[in-house]
Amino acid sequence: MSKDPFARVVAAIATPFQASGTGVDLELFSAHARWLLGSGCDGLVLFGTTGEAASLALAERKAVLEGLIERGVAPGRLVVGTGCCAVAETVALVVHAAQRGCAGALIVPPFFYKGVSEEGVRRCFDAMIEGCGTDLPPIYLYHIPQVSAVPLGPDLTGALIEAHGERIAGYKDSAGDWTNTAEIIRRFPQLHVYVGSEAQLLATLRAGGAGCISATTNVQPQASGRLAADWRSEAADTIQTGLTTVRKAMERHGQLISSTKAVLAEIHGEPAWRAPRPPLLPLGEAEEAALLAEMSELGLAPLGQSVS
Amino acid sequence: MSKDPFARVVAAIATPFQASGTGVDLELFSAHARWLLGSGCDGLVLFGTTGEAASLALAERKAVLEGLIERGVAPGRLVVGTGCCAVAETVALVVHAAQRGCAGALIVPPFFYKGVSEEGVRRCFDAMIEGCGTDLPPIYLYHIPQVSAVPLGPDLTGALIEAHGERIAGYKDSAGDWTNTAEIIRRFPQLHVYVGSEAQLLATLRAGGAGCISATTNVQPQASGRLAADWRSEAADTIQTGLTTVRKAMERHGQLISSTKAVLAEIHGEPAWRAPRPPLLPLGEAEEAALLAEMSELGLAPLGQSVS
Repeated sequence: MSKDPFARVVAAIATPFQASGTGVDLELFSAHARWLLGSGCDGLVLFGTTGEAASLALAERKAVLEGLIERGVAPGRLVVGTGCCAVAETVALVVHAAQRGCAGALIVPPFFYKGVSEEGVRRCFDAMIEGCGTDLPPIYLYHIPQVSAVPLGPDLTGALIEAHGERIAGYKDSAGDWTNTAEIIRRFPQLHVYVGSEAQLLATLRAGGAGCISATTNVQPQASGRLAADWRSEAADTIQTGLTTVRKAMERHGQLISSTKAVLAEIHGEPAWRAPRPPLLPLGEAEEAALLAEMSELGLAPLGQSVS
Repeated sequence: MSKDPFARVVAAIATPFQASGTGVDLELFSAHARWLLGSGCDGLVLFGTTGEAASLALAERKAVLEGLIERGVAPGRLVVGTGCCAVAETVALVVHAAQRGCAGALIVPPFFYKGVSEEGVRRCFDAMIEGCGTDLPPIYLYHIPQVSAVPLGPDLTGALIEAHGERIAGYKDSAGDWTNTAEIIRRFPQLHVYVGSEAQLLATLRAGGAGCISATTNVQPQASGRLAADWRSEAADTIQTGLTTVRKAMERHGQLISSTKAVLAEIHGEPAWRAPRPPLLPLGEAEEAALLAEMSELGLAPLGQSVS
């Protein structure tokens, strides 16, 4: 890495909706962002997969970013998910994030068409970067092929770096395939590489990666922050084991975004947190009870009480 | 079917881009729309998969619809593809199409999240229909799971009809699985069911379906129209065989949207037609030459000369 990463412990922050089911709840959202940044996270990804970016309208995404900044969330701590199917819309969101002083833009490639060529994906990034002109923050490539169905593998990453140099600042690997993560870190030492789960945080830091950007960091920022601070210490493996145990428990109980939101409702004592937007659904009652019981056993407690 | 369908031979009209690579070419677009409607099509789907809807920005989709209407394309002949990932954006496009007097809205469910529940998809349609209020044109369900990864199968279709009655007017089946098409036609006789390829047009009409909405109807509207007019005649099977032969040839030569655009460039004598937006790419030279040679053998000739 040519420079220090903007952050090492990054929550893919979940997005709370108003109980009425209409808009984003900016008060809950900004309170959660400030809590994460004061509890171990040094960065946030706004509007990632966990943030339900795809379920938010373009205008809403701009308004929410502005609302968070107005409520004291530092834009320099935010990388904003901006990838849309239409390049012109990605450009609009990237430019907006740049003009608000955000730390970067995390970009999933257009995801409607399947089986597209790497050349086609490269041209989307070319057009996007050209369209942004000078309003271009550091670009983070978002590899999540199990959702987007459009991979950003090592060869395509190399082609993008060749074309755009330092404008490609980083890479988020959410594929869950360590082979790919390790290859990206090895082949592109100039990139800030983030793994998509804190279960691989220690491995990523040891391999020379930047850190993690993770859904479940929403619920365990403290231990994640401790690991990033102490990863060269003797305690590192023990902290990692604790993080991994919580992560695996979260993965066992239903859709990960919904289970993250269920735990956040408990941590913050705010039931409105439970509900994602459709097509996602809240956890069922029994599933939620089982999840919360397991989280309690693992030491995750409501905010204000002792938190793991 | 409770009423006559709005049309039987429907091209999923391709979208031409300006040679400069920026905007939609409204002159080429409206000329092609008028040609299709005068050559055998009695309806068009604007902004389907073939129309590269996903690669167009929301504002652009509205402006293009208005531009086509201004150039004499009758909105009553248009069903508009309006499905976005964010329900609020689908609502905006559906309301816009309704206010412009379009014949309907073809809606693919939100397609970013994978493995979502039928209940979650149903709630998206519920919210969309509620959000449109009285600005709701007839709704056509768009089943294209090989692209969207979110199926709209018979049970979900039944649930939507139960909840929304006659507002669910039709169904486009692009899955290429005749079992599903036949089941939808049999279980929901009130729906106008369109198959996604004119290779199944005769089978669809014989089974009681409404017709086809197809990419390749862009290049063979005449024979498609003839089949819809004469499907009870002795000539029907022969006409179907001709349609199917052209369709299969198109499918053999590269990505179907790109091959459709290559043939349209030839038919209209307008090279700008060739280029899709990334992530799609134009056919390579050799592929295009092979396709056009085969089309020529099959009797598809430039516009103004004898066209099959």
